[in-house]
Amino acid sequence: MSATTEPEPGGAPGTKGPASIASIAAEAGVSVPTVSKVLNGRPDVAADTRARVESVIERHQYRRRRARQSSRPALIDLVFHEMNSAWATEIIRGVEEAAAAERAAVVLSELGGAHRPRREWFDDLLTRRPLGVILVLAELDAGQRHQLTTRTIPFVVVDTAGEQPPDVPTVGSANWAGGLAATRHLLGLGHRRIAVISGPTTMLCSRARVDGYRSALEADGVPIDPALVRYGDFYVNGGYRHGLELLDRPDRPTAIFAGSDFQALGVMRAARQLGLSIPDDLSIVGYDDLPVTEWIGPPLTTVRQPLREMATTAARMVFSLARGERPPNERIDLATELVVRESTAAPAAR
Amino acid sequence: MSATTEPEPGGAPGTKGPASIASIAAEAGVSVPTVSKVLNGRPDVAADTRARVESVIERHQYRRRRARQSSRPALIDLVFHEMNSAWATEIIRGVEEAAAAERAAVVLSELGGAHRPRREWFDDLLTRRPLGVILVLAELDAGQRHQLTTRTIPFVVVDTAGEQPPDVPTVGSANWAGGLAATRHLLGLGHRRIAVISGPTTMLCSRARVDGYRSALEADGVPIDPALVRYGDFYVNGGYRHGLELLDRPDRPTAIFAGSDFQALGVMRAARQLGLSIPDDLSIVGYDDLPVTEWIGPPLTTVRQPLREMATTAARMVFSLARGERPPNERIDLATELVVRESTAAPAAR
Repeated sequence: MSATTEPEPGGAPGTKGPASIASIAAEAGVSVPTVSKVLNGRPDVAADTRARVESVIERHQYRRRRARQSSRPALIDLVFHEMNSAWATEIIRGVEEAAAAERAAVVLSELGGAHRPRREWFDDLLTRRPLGVILVLAELDAGQRHQLTTRTIPFVVVDTAGEQPPDVPTVGSANWAGGLAATRHLLGLGHRRIAVISGPTTMLCSRARVDGYRSALEADGVPIDPALVRYGDFYVNGGYRHGLELLDRPDRPTAIFAGSDFQALGVMRAARQLGLSIPDDLSIVGYDDLPVTEWIGPPLTTVRQPLREMATTAARMVFSLARGERPPNERIDLATELVVRESTAAPAAR
Repeated sequence: MSATTEPEPGGAPGTKGPASIASIAAEAGVSVPTVSKVLNGRPDVAADTRARVESVIERHQYRRRRARQSSRPALIDLVFHEMNSAWATEIIRGVEEAAAAERAAVVLSELGGAHRPRREWFDDLLTRRPLGVILVLAELDAGQRHQLTTRTIPFVVVDTAGEQPPDVPTVGSANWAGGLAATRHLLGLGHRRIAVISGPTTMLCSRARVDGYRSALEADGVPIDPALVRYGDFYVNGGYRHGLELLDRPDRPTAIFAGSDFQALGVMRAARQLGLSIPDDLSIVGYDDLPVTEWIGPPLTTVRQPLREMATTAARMVFSLARGERPPNERIDLATELVVRESTAAPAAR
């Protein structure tokens, strides 16, 4: 839980009274409609004018009171850093479900792999004035966060990539515990040479899963071989590439915790290519529990991440913030759970 | 291509002049704001009043002129009958791409398996006044089509489930040719006992794929065994259930055209369960070419359906209709293509 450091709406510490659009216009030396345009993200304002207005808005900590917009449609924005198939669908469905309950429509955007939205996209967001924004593995810079705050558009980050400032609400899942559970399961089957392939080191969730792995090994007194700790990209190719490297060594691991279901598919492919059979020659644990993992051969043992519930939780948080309510907890991690299927077994005697 | 039968905006054949909101209000015996509310899908109108106004609007073939809405955000609505993972993601990405080029935001809805939208959802659609609507395996009834037409909101149906009236623009793919190519490939490998599992008989695309299958068999003089022609649900379970039935018979087929990649996964599972190996004991062809088909073991031979391009094409069509342009072709089927991977081979000698 985080303390909120935001001032009261309209209040401006160190100024005589609440700022109005008129006083902001006067101070910035522009007209009232110009301030309005900046607040609404309209493009027809010169860059330097816009910057001047934003800085006056920021200095006065101005907060636009949200007008009752009965004639405007209720929208909630859902923003993906990148939409990779089944993973994204689970999140979309969770947001759809919560939005339908509030009779709001979901606006979907993909940043095409960028973690931060471009200026043009952001302006359009301000123009459509959604009730709130959900960011998935995407984040805003300080200026963008401030712009949303001044427009009273709340936002929640799902499955945050990097560290977020304390006043940014987030919904994630228990990544460390997931890494721990996956590795404990393999240790329990008798494996000692266990590799991990996680996602990019820049992502918190990725590092947390590796730390869970380390912690499980340490608790069992199994030394950590740095050659067996890999960072991929969470996609099939990362699993395939690292899988090939790991499995093509004389002291190859007998088990791999693949960090994501996609990477597990990649490791499976590498194993097939090297003629290794699963789970006889190699045990594999995925992460996410995407629908497909149940259907592939062999069905994948994986760590269930409650993606749909994470999304529903984030959307409900946005709606309650939009109503001016303060949720009791703005940092929520939902539990992960090991799902044992057929890709893991005791190591073969060698 | 279809002839357009729509009258000119505002024109009303058999009436003295173009209808206005005021004249519609007078004729329906309601106020002008009430007509406005009906046009905007606002809920605060009694059901019988609404029906009376709609019927006057229809009688006069009234067309609202689309106001320049520079202060309103540009939206395009994308409506799924059901969002099933990877398949839907490909379509979403295609629409996102076309929408980004027009700087429009994509509003996403799922009808939760219903082929027709509920009234409440439809009212909200009218309230948000999108530039246009893309329906995926979903369709509108005559009344809903008429309501969109009177509001000048164009719509395009992607991968239509049922027959559409001639003035409804559609984007699909060459389903018949896809079924033909899949079956020819299996015949070419030497298979003679070939089964097909398609989707529901109520879907046009599903029947077209079966007809392609029949046509290929007939051309080669292979008799069609009705017991080998199945209709599933396009999902994994349909493939699994029919797969088990087909493979658990003494005269089991040596090859199955599974109608969708999901159904192919289901057939693979059934085969594993019965101890049949792919492609040695059974060849399988999927349909769609979802990303996962490349990664499963063995990688799936399938018919590529250009989902992303279909979506982009539909979105571009909507944008051009919204600009008042008449696209040269309003019924487009994109080509399908056989992608040969490792799930098909010559039948084993028995």
